[in-house]
Amino acid sequence: MGTEEERAIREVHGSWVDAVNDGDLVRLLSLMTDDAVFLSPGQAPFGRHEFPAGFTGAHQQFRVRCISELEGIAVVGEVAYTQCRDSLSLVPRTGGEATKLAGHRLTIYRKQPDGRWLLARDAHTLSPLAG
Amino acid sequence: MGTEEERAIREVHGSWVDAVNDGDLVRLLSLMTDDAVFLSPGQAPFGRHEFPAGFTGAHQQFRVRCISELEGIAVVGEVAYTQCRDSLSLVPRTGGEATKLAGHRLTIYRKQPDGRWLLARDAHTLSPLAG
Repeated sequence: MGTEEERAIREVHGSWVDAVNDGDLVRLLSLMTDDAVFLSPGQAPFGRHEFPAGFTGAHQQFRVRCISELEGIAVVGEVAYTQCRDSLSLVPRTGGEATKLAGHRLTIYRKQPDGRWLLARDAHTLSPLAG
Repeated sequence: MGTEEERAIREVHGSWVDAVNDGDLVRLLSLMTDDAVFLSPGQAPFGRHEFPAGFTGAHQQFRVRCISELEGIAVVGEVAYTQCRDSLSLVPRTGGEATKLAGHRLTIYRKQPDGRWLLARDAHTLSPLAG
């Protein structure tokens, strides 16, 4: 039970992180639901429509390096949720010191009629590391 | 469909916030699953066993006032997830200025065999408000 679905979730999680690091917006949009919502500390919630501007802006300013380790997966019917531990390094393209952030993500995936799992909700707690 | 379950989720959400404001640890523990996990910015994830120390410590130091507005509920079989907008005021019991935080929470509930919905995951993005 669940094992095959868990493998599918692991794949989406891995594809997501690869696409973040590659700056691959099209891939990211293909991995989220139409009603996806993202929650970030100190920021208003945003959805699929606001995602491109923030993502593209970040990649224009920084070389982005995200490392994400899945710490838990639960699959319950058509819904799955995961916890992962993330670290993020943002290196300014114009030079200067990298900003490093670390924290966790709680992500909810929804199974689509065609069997794909898409990201529907994501809340992260990443905050800047001292020094 | 869902309407009765949504009402049940609204009730748990309301009871949770009331219990937070009342410092009612026993009630909070009765509203979460055994494997509940909480994610907070700048903090390691913690579970049911770590919850009491943090909660009691906060209430010993501060008068806690949480306001939480449900912004969305999705019920999918035995799983539900909500988004709420929270503001939190922490007034030091020894006097001094209140700390005010604001942000959102993504919460996952699991339906129990007896029909109750219990909080299973909660990630919040609350951060201090300026001045």
